[in-house]
Amino acid sequence: MTHTTDQCAARPPGRPRSERAAKAIVDATLDLLAEEGGVAGVSIEAVAARAGVGKTTIYRRWPNKEALIIDALAALKGPLPEPRGESLREDLYALAKAFVADKSDKKRVDCYWSVLGSSERYPELMDRFTREIVEPRREVIREVLRRGVASGELRPDLDVELTLWILTGAVAHRTRAAGAGPVPEDYAERVVDALMTGLAPR
Amino acid sequence: MTHTTDQCAARPPGRPRSERAAKAIVDATLDLLAEEGGVAGVSIEAVAARAGVGKTTIYRRWPNKEALIIDALAALKGPLPEPRGESLREDLYALAKAFVADKSDKKRVDCYWSVLGSSERYPELMDRFTREIVEPRREVIREVLRRGVASGELRPDLDVELTLWILTGAVAHRTRAAGAGPVPEDYAERVVDALMTGLAPR
Repeated sequence: MTHTTDQCAARPPGRPRSERAAKAIVDATLDLLAEEGGVAGVSIEAVAARAGVGKTTIYRRWPNKEALIIDALAALKGPLPEPRGESLREDLYALAKAFVADKSDKKRVDCYWSVLGSSERYPELMDRFTREIVEPRREVIREVLRRGVASGELRPDLDVELTLWILTGAVAHRTRAAGAGPVPEDYAERVVDALMTGLAPR
Repeated sequence: MTHTTDQCAARPPGRPRSERAAKAIVDATLDLLAEEGGVAGVSIEAVAARAGVGKTTIYRRWPNKEALIIDALAALKGPLPEPRGESLREDLYALAKAFVADKSDKKRVDCYWSVLGSSERYPELMDRFTREIVEPRREVIREVLRRGVASGELRPDLDVELTLWILTGAVAHRTRAAGAGPVPEDYAERVVDALMTGLAPR
């Protein structure tokens, strides 16, 4: 314990208390999103109480709860792996695996669904969520698919958008479907292989 | 209005008041599931108040709220179309279309997600939901896939279980994904065609 305290004391002065408060606020927001099951369950009051800060501390950084929720959701997502561009199949493996990991993180998924479930009541929040958090990740996948078409590893007439939905859907659905159990270790690779080959005999 | 009242009055005596009450109870349960966003938001008291019946009327038919919720969810699902067995591709079209329709019904989807979101707190409810409502529908799809392998319309080494997840995932995800917009009319057919052909050049 002393050791930890020493480390804290040794922290450079550039890492101020306000940064620790910001992290506590973001964490509290995510906890409330996951537990209360919706945007309606998050309020600046509730976040302040849970984070152990005053409301003023929150309003100093975020104008409203929508802005806070967007930042909190963005903090949840790591970046997708940078596609290496050497082999289409390897790049798809890596993306699908990252997506499986993403969707297997219960808190993450609970937060997303709680936002999706509130989409009708918070259309602007939903728009920002889509534009700033979801779409950039989809674009990485589209770019890999386009490159695969260009390199001849994918069919020349491939429907990139449709393929995006099939690939992400196969992963997202499996991680969440009723009674489906844990996702097998090699699930991402098996999905990619099955999609590449197709269902019809060759 | 008089006409409607006459029709009600003319109802055969075999359609008793208890049946109308049962329908009101099931509808109230679904409303609460969809609106309250979770099994916890449903109580026998709340259902009784919403349906305009006494709690005794509910307990006469359902021992507890879990049993009531299962019956309500079962009432939401129509049967999947009976596969005609003439062409694998046509059967897959029909199943995927039915699945799109199912997933595009907002109240239906809200109810399912509200149950899925409560799965940890209500494991028995979740088990019954999977076993009695979800699995029989999955089995229809598996059966069509097995038949396609047997007829040579599908690859002899097809992974039926994996294909089930890919097919249902492609549809389920698209109907619900953030910012994806309405599902195109021909989406089900395009998914099936894309899956049949595969992503790699032939």
